[in-house]
Amino acid sequence: MGKALIIGAGGVASVAVHKCVQNSEVFEEICIASRTKSKCDDLKAKLDGGKTKITTAQVDADNVEELIALINEFQPDIVMNLALPYQDLTIMDACLATKTNYMDTANYEPEDTAKFEYSWQWDYKERFEKAGITALLGSGFDPGVTGVFSAYALKHYFDEIEYIDILDCNGGDHGYPFATNFNPEINIREVSANGRYWENGEWIETKPMEIKRVYDFKEVGEKDMYLLYHEELESLAKNIPGLKRIRFFMTFGQSYLTHLKALENVGMTSIEPIEFEGKQIIPLQFLKAVLPDPASLGPRTVGKTNIGCIFKGKKDGQDKTYYVYNICDHQECYKEVGSQAISYTTGVPAMIGAAMVMTGKWNKPGVYNVEEFNPDPFMEELNKWGLPWVEDFNPVLVDELPEESKAKESELVR
Amino acid sequence: MGKALIIGAGGVASVAVHKCVQNSEVFEEICIASRTKSKCDDLKAKLDGGKTKITTAQVDADNVEELIALINEFQPDIVMNLALPYQDLTIMDACLATKTNYMDTANYEPEDTAKFEYSWQWDYKERFEKAGITALLGSGFDPGVTGVFSAYALKHYFDEIEYIDILDCNGGDHGYPFATNFNPEINIREVSANGRYWENGEWIETKPMEIKRVYDFKEVGEKDMYLLYHEELESLAKNIPGLKRIRFFMTFGQSYLTHLKALENVGMTSIEPIEFEGKQIIPLQFLKAVLPDPASLGPRTVGKTNIGCIFKGKKDGQDKTYYVYNICDHQECYKEVGSQAISYTTGVPAMIGAAMVMTGKWNKPGVYNVEEFNPDPFMEELNKWGLPWVEDFNPVLVDELPEESKAKESELVR
Repeated sequence: MGKALIIGAGGVASVAVHKCVQNSEVFEEICIASRTKSKCDDLKAKLDGGKTKITTAQVDADNVEELIALINEFQPDIVMNLALPYQDLTIMDACLATKTNYMDTANYEPEDTAKFEYSWQWDYKERFEKAGITALLGSGFDPGVTGVFSAYALKHYFDEIEYIDILDCNGGDHGYPFATNFNPEINIREVSANGRYWENGEWIETKPMEIKRVYDFKEVGEKDMYLLYHEELESLAKNIPGLKRIRFFMTFGQSYLTHLKALENVGMTSIEPIEFEGKQIIPLQFLKAVLPDPASLGPRTVGKTNIGCIFKGKKDGQDKTYYVYNICDHQECYKEVGSQAISYTTGVPAMIGAAMVMTGKWNKPGVYNVEEFNPDPFMEELNKWGLPWVEDFNPVLVDELPEESKAKESELVR
Repeated sequence: MGKALIIGAGGVASVAVHKCVQNSEVFEEICIASRTKSKCDDLKAKLDGGKTKITTAQVDADNVEELIALINEFQPDIVMNLALPYQDLTIMDACLATKTNYMDTANYEPEDTAKFEYSWQWDYKERFEKAGITALLGSGFDPGVTGVFSAYALKHYFDEIEYIDILDCNGGDHGYPFATNFNPEINIREVSANGRYWENGEWIETKPMEIKRVYDFKEVGEKDMYLLYHEELESLAKNIPGLKRIRFFMTFGQSYLTHLKALENVGMTSIEPIEFEGKQIIPLQFLKAVLPDPASLGPRTVGKTNIGCIFKGKKDGQDKTYYVYNICDHQECYKEVGSQAISYTTGVPAMIGAAMVMTGKWNKPGVYNVEEFNPDPFMEELNKWGLPWVEDFNPVLVDELPEESKAKESELVR
């Protein structure tokens, strides 16, 4: 079928590459490129020898000229941006310059401010239209599959969707008292940022972790979940007509929150360097060195993730509810691709999204979020490539749950 | 009256020096000696110019020969050991060699094992007797004043004391989410060590923080307190005839325990060095550098300590209870001597104990704990030098309190 240039060689990229190689009918040739070429070579060494031809390259994704040169050399049908979200715009610029399709899994975020929104990327729409190329934004799980679920629900089950609650549950247990899957700084930002949801055309802000519910997740059990802002809220609020409210909830364990808060309180998460034995050391960097290596969590994480959307709306004048979710087992992911479910649930939809564009199923010039395409082929591929989904037409709604007190960290917070 | 050689220049030594200078009739001349002479000079600079003549010296308290040379040069009436407990024995050796009286505030502890007991120092008894000099052990607050309280109770109010509960409450608040008054390693050891108390001639061990009660302390209020081992239990169990049980309780706030546990869980309290940017760094050392400087706590700590003993026994065939305690205000201590109550309550009894020996009120050749002397003059001096005591003949007994669940750290402990 075609060629994909994959930028990035971290956990998500690794899963996506594994999946591209499994899907060699579409991905006949891939080039894995990142700042550190040895990481790409390691991936190639692990997966080489199958039907997909794998090459690697060194590239600085902040540098548009370098990107253009690499694209011109490799001539891919699509650039899969699985690098840092700081680099979305430079990669989009390179795609425009070379008239190459683009996809990513997370929206652009300026490196110096913690403000993630689609405006910067949506601004490219006219230019992508004129260039006759497609940019597919946010094709991970959330954002990504959650948007596909929404489009699927609207297409098949509703005349109008009024309420969406996205529920992201990680029931994984790595057996450490405390560890983070990725940068603890990002974890802390999530937990200490104000929450936000969209209702009746307006954004409503909450205090950090203010809205908490306990939800009984299938195959995981009861978990504390908290209302957070998440980027697909912005695109779905815009793209689902008639929507009255959309919210996002993510599970966090009390112990996790307590540890994070304690570390923050004592200053161990600070990015201000301190003087230590004649050297400037950033506490957060030292903390990362003390914490278990995120890469070590994969083999020891057990349990499942359960991520999905609960819809409430109207069909033929009747109220209707619908819950569609995926359950993913950390250990099974690790056995299959050497990564646990967090990377797996993002990497698989990245491969599928790229395949949608490459096969022409999702191909319209411009810049689009996943929910703006026909969800059916994507939903089929989810079942095929390891993220099967389950439907529930009588789910417990979040609004039926009793209100919970916010995170019990009151004793830690002063 | 005489001359005292003060070894140590930390928080407790600083308070003791302040108090010696106030008590210049007894302390006509003092020499402050420590490994870091500049600390001694700083103290001298602050307090010089009064009636007490102050000199300073550099000394390595691990080195008996150096100590002997210093004692021979200064010719003190007593050596006040306010240095680390690791150095008790070398200083006692130097006192023996020079026939000089000795006192300290904490019993000897080998540097490599966390085992504190009096056996090593009690072994010196015969040698001190033969040399005709007095060693006064444990003349701080606890141990120290708690032993004096016990001797006083026995002398004046009881025919026989059957039960002693020592209650050490620190109601101070430094306004930080987490900080330690001294070495966090010692804090952690206290909290993670098994508890121990003495009953019917036997030591009974408890799990760490297993026995918890909530006590309503006068002028402080209700505080969680936990049964710990504390060194005066050993000497009082031996020196109070007819004793059936003695226990020690110390207050810890839930937030303090949670922070400490979280830091321990993530490895920040480890003394095993880790590799960081090409350097071996001990996490606990780095944590100390991140935490507020203990010296910075003094000016900002508000609230009071309340430390005392509850006695239950017999007088004239009748059951009797008696509670004697001192309340000490952090801010008042800081105003007076530039240290808060933790150092103050130890430094004042250190000065008084030394004065007892120098004035001949407590002078008998051998090695003794405070409760083996006449408590009356010491009790008088407590009132005079800033640690007035309060008596309560109808106290709430610990055994009357409802049992409390142990520290609520279950979610943190795995």
